[in-house]
Amino acid sequence: MAGIELGAKAPKAGVSRGVAVLDFILRIVGIIATLASAIAMGTTDESLPFFTQFIRFKAQYDDLPTFTFFVVANSIVSAYLVLSLALSIFHILKSGAQKSRVVLIFFDAGMLAFLTAAASAASAIVYLAHKGNTRTNWFAICQQFNSFCQRTSGSLIGSFGGMIVFILLILLSAVTLSRR
Amino acid sequence: MAGIELGAKAPKAGVSRGVAVLDFILRIVGIIATLASAIAMGTTDESLPFFTQFIRFKAQYDDLPTFTFFVVANSIVSAYLVLSLALSIFHILKSGAQKSRVVLIFFDAGMLAFLTAAASAASAIVYLAHKGNTRTNWFAICQQFNSFCQRTSGSLIGSFGGMIVFILLILLSAVTLSRR
Repeated sequence: MAGIELGAKAPKAGVSRGVAVLDFILRIVGIIATLASAIAMGTTDESLPFFTQFIRFKAQYDDLPTFTFFVVANSIVSAYLVLSLALSIFHILKSGAQKSRVVLIFFDAGMLAFLTAAASAASAIVYLAHKGNTRTNWFAICQQFNSFCQRTSGSLIGSFGGMIVFILLILLSAVTLSRR
Repeated sequence: MAGIELGAKAPKAGVSRGVAVLDFILRIVGIIATLASAIAMGTTDESLPFFTQFIRFKAQYDDLPTFTFFVVANSIVSAYLVLSLALSIFHILKSGAQKSRVVLIFFDAGMLAFLTAAASAASAIVYLAHKGNTRTNWFAICQQFNSFCQRTSGSLIGSFGGMIVFILLILLSAVTLSRR
């Protein structure tokens, strides 16, 4: 019995280490994605070469509170991922750790919800800026602020990439926990 | 060695069963919360006793595509939770199951992201309906459609409750997986 267990332990630890390395790489990808989103949104402003009584001559991301929330949330998630790298390295070195993985799954799930909230709230506003809504008399502003709209739309991509990263991270942690 | 393992197995299985029952109860709570959200939003419409050239005399939830998405997403999540009850019952009966728990964590995380997306997109629109935005000339419509706004705001509560349920479900599954 003991011999079989010892023999089975080595490949299991190897797989766990491989999963831990993948976890580390995914977190790096997540950091880049969310940071890129925050920077792309945070540096968005457009000045029009003309202005009238009705059309504003300048559009910035912080004209809309939802976009400010988006920048803040992406920055926080990015910072969390940097901090979680420490635990990720710990898991590569010590693949038998269990409690720290449970803690990580819990915080990953929380951060997934937080990032999704920011990304989809911003998406709702971007959609409104593109399409407008005739029933509520909210007009599409993308006709005037074309580059502003393109920039804010593009900055969503990183956040949605980050969401996929988090779902994969939770799956990886769950697989590792189920393996022992 | 074998004797100790057998002795330790009984209380562990008991705790796992307790956690599985808690999992089941949380899923029921989640079904009620998301279903209530979908119904509250889906039945929202308000007719004003007057109308002018500028103010519409009727407001319905499907005037805003985001609210339609909210109703659909809450219904889908609710249906998923009903289906997942089968696996939850399976876990109460057979507390040693592992692979099915990993599958459940993965789908729970996906549904968490889906529900959060719907809830926060609807929140962004509700916020806009309450506050408006002067920079983009989007006016607050809550002055006219008071009960419409209260109803849509209230229907968000169930969704946010559902999000907390999902985070707890993921935590419970992770704790159970780490226990063996």
